[in-house]
Amino acid sequence: MDSLIDKITSLLSDYAHCIDSDELERWPEFFTEQARYFVTTAFNQEKGLSIGIIDASSRNMLEDRVAALRKANIYEPQRYRHIISIVRITGNDGMLARVEASFMVVRTMIDGTQDLFVSGRYEDVIDLSRESPLFAEKLVILDSDKIDTLLAIPL
Amino acid sequence: MDSLIDKITSLLSDYAHCIDSDELERWPEFFTEQARYFVTTAFNQEKGLSIGIIDASSRNMLEDRVAALRKANIYEPQRYRHIISIVRITGNDGMLARVEASFMVVRTMIDGTQDLFVSGRYEDVIDLSRESPLFAEKLVILDSDKIDTLLAIPL
Amino acid sequence: MDSLIDKITSLLSDYAHCIDSDELERWPEFFTEQARYFVTTAFNQEKGLSIGIIDASSRNMLEDRVAALRKANIYEPQRYRHIISIVRITGNDGMLARVEASFMVVRTMIDGTQDLFVSGRYEDVIDLSRESPLFAEKLVILDSDKIDTLLAIPL
Repeated sequence: MDSLIDKITSLLSDYAHCIDSDELERWPEFFTEQARYFVTTAFNQEKGLSIGIIDASSRNMLEDRVAALRKANIYEPQRYRHIISIVRITGNDGMLARVEASFMVVRTMIDGTQDLFVSGRYEDVIDLSRESPLFAEKLVILDSDKIDTLLAIPL
Repeated sequence: MDSLIDKITSLLSDYAHCIDSDELERWPEFFTEQARYFVTTAFNQEKGLSIGIIDASSRNMLEDRVAALRKANIYEPQRYRHIISIVRITGNDGMLARVEASFMVVRTMIDGTQDLFVSGRYEDVIDLSRESPLFAEKLVILDSDKIDTLLAIPL
Repeated sequence: MDSLIDKITSLLSDYAHCIDSDELERWPEFFTEQARYFVTTAFNQEKGLSIGIIDASSRNMLEDRVAALRKANIYEPQRYRHIISIVRITGNDGMLARVEASFMVVRTMIDGTQDLFVSGRYEDVIDLSRESPLFAEKLVILDSDKIDTLLAIPL
């Protein structure tokens, strides 16, 4: 029998795999219909600024985002590799779980060079009432304010 | 029902979150009253040298350390992000568990630049006899001998 | 009672610890007698190229590899630190489990400098029918094509 932490681990690792293998069309399926997906920086969050780098309030908006990414053809042939730290559950009422996880993303350029692309943490609300857990809210808080335009990709 | 590995995961991820969110006053609370907290390098450990970069033998000493850090105002406005690898349990008698985990810390400077600050492993003895698991011993073994003075911060 | 994900976590973290602590002679013991160990790049894998950087088809071949590494004395005094992301189970029939995990390796040189050595993912088939889980197949897919000769070390 899987524990809650096991279920969360599966959701987060599936999510990261979807992005890292460039299966972006499946990315919105990890969210509920009314989900919020919000990317910001630690600086903005601490100042209470509600300005997001990305601020989507439904799965449809995420689908539009992927379509735009594909159409604009701005998705460059880098590879991304999410390394997600062990998970932290901060709340759970049986229907919704609050979860945090630190992460970093390694970027591999077409010439083979690699760098630390971003680091930060997820603050997620996970809907446990469905057959499979889904993100009802995903807040991505980046450690650095130096934002690469490539942040157009999902994190 | 959470497994032992789930409980350890929660303790370690809470611990890392406490440091990364600069809630250092809570840091000593992760340790038992008589806990040992010892930071050393792999080189020193392999040579059998008992010289630690930090060597504390009680929770009180950790509290003093945090107070000194705050007073000296040497805590600079960097951000730290612990990425903790999956966990390894090497012993468990029901009262005490021995646990190892590899980790790395990403540092983000005020100008937004990021680097790999340290990597290493934890060798922990965890007291399971309390309501919540606590560190009875935490040995932090750093991979590199090149020590940044900023190692004053908890790891 | 440990869940499957707990067992997998233990296997992978023990495996990484074996390599990072330079106990290479124990490394083949993580594999079944007829195991395949295959290291390739994401580029080669996507092109369907079956060219591996390392391609071993039995535990004996892994033992030979370690013996050669020791004899050739090419193992340099770097340290390696595997950081393994949370684990993903993609299949399980009770006898064999399919598992994926993203990883990165930090390398520490003798002078204390550190870098990101490699990143990539494991695609493993794990034999659950033994007393302890073993790798029946371990596919290591590296993100970068820029291969360091030091890849002679197990990953």
